[in-house]
Amino acid sequence: MLHFDCDYMRGAHPKVMEALLQTNMTQTVGYGLDEYSVRAKDKIRVACGTPDADVDFFVGGTQTNSTVIHALLRPYEGVVCASSGHINVHEAGAIECGGHKVLALPGENGKLDAGAVDKYISDFYSDPTYLHMVAPGMVYISHPTEYGTLYSRVELEALSAVCRKHNVYLYVDGARLGYGLAAYDTDVTLSVISGCCDVFYIGGTKVGALFGEAVVSRKGTFGNMFSVMKQHGALLAKGRLLGVQFDALFSDNLYLDISRHAIDMAMKLKQGFSDRGYSFYMDSPTNQQFIVLSEDKKAELEQVATFEVWGKTSGNDDIARFVTDWSTEESDVDEFLKHL
Amino acid sequence: MLHFDCDYMRGAHPKVMEALLQTNMTQTVGYGLDEYSVRAKDKIRVACGTPDADVDFFVGGTQTNSTVIHALLRPYEGVVCASSGHINVHEAGAIECGGHKVLALPGENGKLDAGAVDKYISDFYSDPTYLHMVAPGMVYISHPTEYGTLYSRVELEALSAVCRKHNVYLYVDGARLGYGLAAYDTDVTLSVISGCCDVFYIGGTKVGALFGEAVVSRKGTFGNMFSVMKQHGALLAKGRLLGVQFDALFSDNLYLDISRHAIDMAMKLKQGFSDRGYSFYMDSPTNQQFIVLSEDKKAELEQVATFEVWGKTSGNDDIARFVTDWSTEESDVDEFLKHL
Amino acid sequence: MLHFDCDYMRGAHPKVMEALLQTNMTQTVGYGLDEYSVRAKDKIRVACGTPDADVDFFVGGTQTNSTVIHALLRPYEGVVCASSGHINVHEAGAIECGGHKVLALPGENGKLDAGAVDKYISDFYSDPTYLHMVAPGMVYISHPTEYGTLYSRVELEALSAVCRKHNVYLYVDGARLGYGLAAYDTDVTLSVISGCCDVFYIGGTKVGALFGEAVVSRKGTFGNMFSVMKQHGALLAKGRLLGVQFDALFSDNLYLDISRHAIDMAMKLKQGFSDRGYSFYMDSPTNQQFIVLSEDKKAELEQVATFEVWGKTSGNDDIARFVTDWSTEESDVDEFLKHL
Amino acid sequence: MLHFDCDYMRGAHPKVMEALLQTNMTQTVGYGLDEYSVRAKDKIRVACGTPDADVDFFVGGTQTNSTVIHALLRPYEGVVCASSGHINVHEAGAIECGGHKVLALPGENGKLDAGAVDKYISDFYSDPTYLHMVAPGMVYISHPTEYGTLYSRVELEALSAVCRKHNVYLYVDGARLGYGLAAYDTDVTLSVISGCCDVFYIGGTKVGALFGEAVVSRKGTFGNMFSVMKQHGALLAKGRLLGVQFDALFSDNLYLDISRHAIDMAMKLKQGFSDRGYSFYMDSPTNQQFIVLSEDKKAELEQVATFEVWGKTSGNDDIARFVTDWSTEESDVDEFLKHL
Repeated sequence: MLHFDCDYMRGAHPKVMEALLQTNMTQTVGYGLDEYSVRAKDKIRVACGTPDADVDFFVGGTQTNSTVIHALLRPYEGVVCASSGHINVHEAGAIECGGHKVLALPGENGKLDAGAVDKYISDFYSDPTYLHMVAPGMVYISHPTEYGTLYSRVELEALSAVCRKHNVYLYVDGARLGYGLAAYDTDVTLSVISGCCDVFYIGGTKVGALFGEAVVSRKGTFGNMFSVMKQHGALLAKGRLLGVQFDALFSDNLYLDISRHAIDMAMKLKQGFSDRGYSFYMDSPTNQQFIVLSEDKKAELEQVATFEVWGKTSGNDDIARFVTDWSTEESDVDEFLKHL
Repeated sequence: MLHFDCDYMRGAHPKVMEALLQTNMTQTVGYGLDEYSVRAKDKIRVACGTPDADVDFFVGGTQTNSTVIHALLRPYEGVVCASSGHINVHEAGAIECGGHKVLALPGENGKLDAGAVDKYISDFYSDPTYLHMVAPGMVYISHPTEYGTLYSRVELEALSAVCRKHNVYLYVDGARLGYGLAAYDTDVTLSVISGCCDVFYIGGTKVGALFGEAVVSRKGTFGNMFSVMKQHGALLAKGRLLGVQFDALFSDNLYLDISRHAIDMAMKLKQGFSDRGYSFYMDSPTNQQFIVLSEDKKAELEQVATFEVWGKTSGNDDIARFVTDWSTEESDVDEFLKHL
Repeated sequence: MLHFDCDYMRGAHPKVMEALLQTNMTQTVGYGLDEYSVRAKDKIRVACGTPDADVDFFVGGTQTNSTVIHALLRPYEGVVCASSGHINVHEAGAIECGGHKVLALPGENGKLDAGAVDKYISDFYSDPTYLHMVAPGMVYISHPTEYGTLYSRVELEALSAVCRKHNVYLYVDGARLGYGLAAYDTDVTLSVISGCCDVFYIGGTKVGALFGEAVVSRKGTFGNMFSVMKQHGALLAKGRLLGVQFDALFSDNLYLDISRHAIDMAMKLKQGFSDRGYSFYMDSPTNQQFIVLSEDKKAELEQVATFEVWGKTSGNDDIARFVTDWSTEESDVDEFLKHL
Repeated sequence: MLHFDCDYMRGAHPKVMEALLQTNMTQTVGYGLDEYSVRAKDKIRVACGTPDADVDFFVGGTQTNSTVIHALLRPYEGVVCASSGHINVHEAGAIECGGHKVLALPGENGKLDAGAVDKYISDFYSDPTYLHMVAPGMVYISHPTEYGTLYSRVELEALSAVCRKHNVYLYVDGARLGYGLAAYDTDVTLSVISGCCDVFYIGGTKVGALFGEAVVSRKGTFGNMFSVMKQHGALLAKGRLLGVQFDALFSDNLYLDISRHAIDMAMKLKQGFSDRGYSFYMDSPTNQQFIVLSEDKKAELEQVATFEVWGKTSGNDDIARFVTDWSTEESDVDEFLKHL
């Protein structure tokens, strides 16, 4: 059976495992104050072109989102996102558990439009009852989005300008950031993202690490992030595990190289579907591909591969998601394409 | 200047003030354990036809909603409501502050449709990822709604059946309940509401009291409500002030009589607008009337009366809200109608 | 039966009731933006000698404490108080419900010592693990304390200096502030308190109002307090009810005059006990007197008066609390003293 | 330099690393629904002698404590613990962040006494104002405690009886559980713990795992724990990492064997100190040893080893903590002892 369910079905990239093994019996202090973490943070700063940025390591995405948002918003503020945003749908209310409303706007293909955000915030302050309402304090986007789509540099800069105009934070959820940076035609680089937003995270869990996300923020954006992380159960005793992994991922261009592999595999899959006349629910340049399948075809493909069904089209066909990652083997893709 | 802004511009009905005055120098124990509160609760039970119901008095609506919802939901549960619901729009995130997501569904004229709720909950549990999402634990409706509209008995019973089927609470926000009960053609009575829902509140603040809301719940629905109220800052030291007021409101049919007066005034206003060819944004049988006004007409009417503007129609006319209450003087309505 | 249970057994001072009656049918805007509230705030600023202070009206004490604390602390900060502090004991966890730890220090007669606070905060930052601990962000004291005791001006100034040194807020819970200000030998005035702390409140509920507390804060201490209040269910629709009451209380020295009456009555009671050889659990100069009673005496006095028993002495006698307030009648005190 | 700072300075036991490596490229479903997790849970059930127990895997201790406590307590309930309890001191307010008060009682050597707990809860309900206070809903103990001390079987059974009598949960924090179970003279086994408490966790982070804690609970104690975990950011995408590690730890008695090694090393260290006339701040039978050091001796030892200083004795000597773990080398202990 072939597997295209998601991008966290295997452990870590062999070089990451090797680094964990090599450092396994070394003794270091805890809580991320070790030398591996220091070195990994430096490499991330270099990769982002932001020598002054703060970097904090987290274990997983929901933990990262809820901690970052709780650390930055005032009690009466909420976070604006596309209605398909992960924080709005698939975090079991983690943001609300921390006291904040998610202010969901209609998105398009998972993306928020800068003009729509501008209008939303402008309209908000035009409403005479706005003090009775949850104030927008942050804009959250994911890049790639939950639908695999990407913002362009111009779109990110426009969102950034809107956020600065209204004095709200711009936060980018990069759970799959590598797969966005490695897409074929994107003009969005780490330094573009660093320049546009106040806080973003570089996803490791889905991109070669056993687990781990690196939060990069403009220096001083957070106050005492250490204590906020501790309070949220997000401070790993053996913090060096995160440092070691990100040190490996940001050595020798590993993070981008393995991301590019996932994109190559996804594009091969996409081309294969396209060549055989399948239609796409969404045109995605990244590692998640959404294909429209008839009931029969779905049943047939389920004989050879596992994948997620995300819903139905208006024509009652299934929308199936096929996902590649850093570990996808080309032979598996080739084998799968034979069955289309 | 005439005032039709809202239904909380004056103090209390004279009989309520009289009761407060008469009891003012009597000494009682605090926190609602006094004899006035006991008596008021009994009268409310009689009015609802629910001899076993629990009754708890609160000071205001947002406090009531957030305390009731916090008391009943499990951490991972949210509350379903119409997108126009007060808890979703105008409580500054009070529900999220207590840790719970508001699950807003499109409403029609402020109302939630039982079928839509049924489909939402059924679809929720059909989604293979539902455990990553906020589970619906309660359905919140307001009666009258924020747009002045009313549910019929059949509609309430359908909602009740859906809630029981899915084992979620049904909670009715009755901030303006009197104005719903006193509407001309409604078949919804206090006992219909008591029979349909697990918890509801009888609004006093907007219906003759200085302040106060009476929460009526199926016996034992809450556990230790006293402590939850205290924790939410909702336990009034001189609890007897709420008892005295509701005792007065539920004596000699006062609550319904003064509500009926507001309806009479609203219907006179409605008829006046209608006779003169104005169009309505919403057909409301209660004390809030939503009228479409041209820019010029709005400016003209603002010379003689105050009222709120709620937004714009698609044709860019203003939507103006005119509100009556227990204290509206007929001469004011007559005077206003001369200016239409 | 005579009643010395607490200071919230009656309604409001007649002049407050009169003001509510006189303004009852006047129409005003809601949420405290009315002219009565504006006027009351001005009078409070004058009384405090702080022309720039912000003033916000709340309904009750627990609501005030939890909202003020939630508005000011960062997520990882807690509030230091005496272990007998109201927020630590009798608010059913309202502060923790808002996410903050109460950092209780041993007090003496209900009071926090400036030196002890200084040592606590200094030790905190000397602990190498302090980032794993809850940082002190505010010092909370009550004046009078829960035991009726008072700080001297020197003590308040010392606490103030410690708080400024460590950059934490000083907040004074003045639920019974009038009874502190009107004590015979105090050198603490409203302007002393204003000068020493960042935020304090002037209690109305226990000092002549039906209900209500006036929060006075250094200008700009809070950001958007309106929305925080709304979120906490602390924004009264008919905000003018609070304005009208505090307008009355701060006219013609009423607040201090009626407080002084309570003190006169308490001192008469105290003298009476003292003359007859009773011993005091605590030497209180305010309206709460704590008397040691034998089992027999307690039973005997319970025939003529109600009062609270607060615990046992080490010698297993009862500690009984006798409370006077603005409404205590001298004839009742005289009558009671006959039974000692 | 030798290191005795803490028990999380190295990675994982080689057999755990080996298991992670061997399974690294296997594809499994996420979120702990994989076969490794299923198998590990079964082994834990067998080891505990509780075939029906629920087992949930977490990444770290603070996350575990805050999620378990949030999942079980009602809003107005708090958790009783010794004042030295980890949740009271070193979790940066994680429990309060979730809305619950920590009710700290004086402990002795880090332990809670069953009689003291019984008295506390009995006194609580005897207080006529108890509904204004935070109700005890759970008792939290750590085993070993933060001071390395252990409960006896009789003490645990007494605590269990008190908790059942008062209908509150008993929860055991087993961050260092292995080092408790492997102590020389303990009569507390996994099945004793399972029998006494409602929920406990088996610490992996400090006992051979890279990271991870296994929460064992009486079947059905939690409702929907999956969603609560997700909401708390505690659901690991690659849940199998926890399964694989606990599968290894609970094969061939590994968990107890490596724990015993740490105890052997600690006892050797203890004997060494004792033989040379050092005094102990606390008599600990587990892997943490608390030694009283003069200023000079401390400075001298710091030349050869790292260790934590926990405070001062009343005589102003230092209290130094020396910690062993599964990975401590006997040669390091021998080397260190030469310097005493």
